[in-house]
Amino acid sequence: MPLSDTRFLSRRRALSAKLAAQRVDAMLVTHLTHVRYLSGFSGSNGALLLHKDLEAQIATDGRYLTQIAAEVPDIEALDARAVGPDLLATVTGPKRVGFEADFVSVSQLQRLEKAAGEDVTLVPISGVIEDIRLVKEPYELERLREVAVIANTAFQELIDENLIRAGRTETEVAADLEYKMRLHGAERTSFETIVASGPNSAMPHHEPGARVLEEGDIVTVDFGAHAAGYNSDTTRTVIISDADEFATEIYNIVLKAQLAGVAAAIPGAKLSDVDKACRDIITDAGYGEYFVHSTGHGVGLDLHEAPYAATSGQGELVEGMTLTVEPGIYVPGKGGVRIEDTLIITAGQPENLTHLVKDLTVV
Amino acid sequence: MPLSDTRFLSRRRALSAKLAAQRVDAMLVTHLTHVRYLSGFSGSNGALLLHKDLEAQIATDGRYLTQIAAEVPDIEALDARAVGPDLLATVTGPKRVGFEADFVSVSQLQRLEKAAGEDVTLVPISGVIEDIRLVKEPYELERLREVAVIANTAFQELIDENLIRAGRTETEVAADLEYKMRLHGAERTSFETIVASGPNSAMPHHEPGARVLEEGDIVTVDFGAHAAGYNSDTTRTVIISDADEFATEIYNIVLKAQLAGVAAAIPGAKLSDVDKACRDIITDAGYGEYFVHSTGHGVGLDLHEAPYAATSGQGELVEGMTLTVEPGIYVPGKGGVRIEDTLIITAGQPENLTHLVKDLTVV
Repeated sequence: MPLSDTRFLSRRRALSAKLAAQRVDAMLVTHLTHVRYLSGFSGSNGALLLHKDLEAQIATDGRYLTQIAAEVPDIEALDARAVGPDLLATVTGPKRVGFEADFVSVSQLQRLEKAAGEDVTLVPISGVIEDIRLVKEPYELERLREVAVIANTAFQELIDENLIRAGRTETEVAADLEYKMRLHGAERTSFETIVASGPNSAMPHHEPGARVLEEGDIVTVDFGAHAAGYNSDTTRTVIISDADEFATEIYNIVLKAQLAGVAAAIPGAKLSDVDKACRDIITDAGYGEYFVHSTGHGVGLDLHEAPYAATSGQGELVEGMTLTVEPGIYVPGKGGVRIEDTLIITAGQPENLTHLVKDLTVV
Repeated sequence: MPLSDTRFLSRRRALSAKLAAQRVDAMLVTHLTHVRYLSGFSGSNGALLLHKDLEAQIATDGRYLTQIAAEVPDIEALDARAVGPDLLATVTGPKRVGFEADFVSVSQLQRLEKAAGEDVTLVPISGVIEDIRLVKEPYELERLREVAVIANTAFQELIDENLIRAGRTETEVAADLEYKMRLHGAERTSFETIVASGPNSAMPHHEPGARVLEEGDIVTVDFGAHAAGYNSDTTRTVIISDADEFATEIYNIVLKAQLAGVAAAIPGAKLSDVDKACRDIITDAGYGEYFVHSTGHGVGLDLHEAPYAATSGQGELVEGMTLTVEPGIYVPGKGGVRIEDTLIITAGQPENLTHLVKDLTVV
């Protein structure tokens, strides 16, 4: 059996081991990210049915039959359009079958109920596969390092080739960055690239537009590369030509906060304390009301996934988790700064996947 | 009141007019595409509560407060993280409040039920906003023409600059096309660009990879530009250097089928008949089993939306709807061809948004 099959099989084994505690005989997996995680199938219509005894069935429609045979050689595929209900209809009871309550819509549940045999009971399940995904396998950490290198190499080229400069538009900067990520191996961006210049930098999620960059602008660039199912997430803020007092002040506060957050991201640290490490510095500097979001999130198959470092964050960091640390200050009408690295939590200080200069950079 | 507000207000009026028939006093809109359609808010966390009397409330979190004030000047925003439950909690009963059953997950419904006041009854609603979206307004048709021009101009440049040629990789072709769409005004692609060359062209949804294009290859390129919330969808298939007998044969069958589908797309035509117009030609030519998907779909705020032209398609075309016509033949191991235009249904023959040559093109 090829190595890749072993990976998916061991993930299915981890899930099947948890099914007894959920008091179900099988689980119907319909969230595509989870179908991919447990089987390797990357198409846009698919479902997986996993029994306690590890027996598995998978379904997709005609568009993906060639692809699924290549990607999932160890499970025979059912040719179905309504993949979830059609798979469920193959179950003969009496059985309790779990479904993904966080991803199945109220309407989809009605269709599942209709398809289920008379002595099949549907049971809502939440967070079980997410729990398995929380600590990344070595294979996943390799993929995360790769997408980080793609994104960060592209950004470094943008700086080296002086492509962030007065006279260019936000859109042109975003286009160049995305093109470079694509050529370095990104299948797509992990999210819509943010290039926020001048007053736009005060909007944490500004979409790049026709605004022309000017001397003195703060320019925040938040970007990510997606490949092989995995995501990266990085933010850098640079200043064009000349940093004024305001820009220099908030940059250095955010940098200090970001470094404190990274230092706090060790196994056993409370997630709320990682947030606090950043937030206290910004609050003490008098900008607390302008740090309008939480400090960070895990990155993996989803761009945003557990753990979450927020004021109200629950739980602790564990070796093998990922976490972004991305404090920011946004002063409406004036401008903003965000600095973001993605970390892998290790036994000691975290492994920082973002190998890009963080000191105030004037371009 | 600015013109843009009138547009959103009249959409909300259309929805509020339908609420009585659904026997609800108000509707909680949480699907982001619908929040945007009804209010203009384009952020990634938001919800809208619309009452029968047209009174409306909107909610988002701290990241988007600046943006929502600019995009939705006529509705005051609630600062909330759990936007749906927090909005619902403001409702005082006795009231029946609709929720979007197709988009609200089983877990989200539980949270809504918890947040609802004692005499507030939650009612599942499906397809009501989609019905309003089915026939596009003149404003929407303008946006759809614009994104089509962006995408098709980019593809024409790809051809004119001889960027699809032997020696280049699928990824390089996709990167160039996406870069050009971005510079012409796309905020992002509408979906992951497909560049499927040689044997890969037999996979309708192949992701571009490191395969190097060769002379004689069939190359299918399926691409779309997203801007201002709207999408485009086009497929062209070209042959590199020299078309062999197989490629020429299946290309001309698909072309004939595609032209028949376009001609059939007139007001009053059954959706199943548009599909049949394409499918009959392919079946009669002996390739019926290799046309593994349906003929087309609407395009708008969603890439895939009603109406659907399939063998089992229900209903008829109406002026102002959009429809792709995209028959294909995919022979595993040998190769495939797909040709796709996006149409606006008009009183006479459809308006074809795809102004690109369809005859067999050898590049």
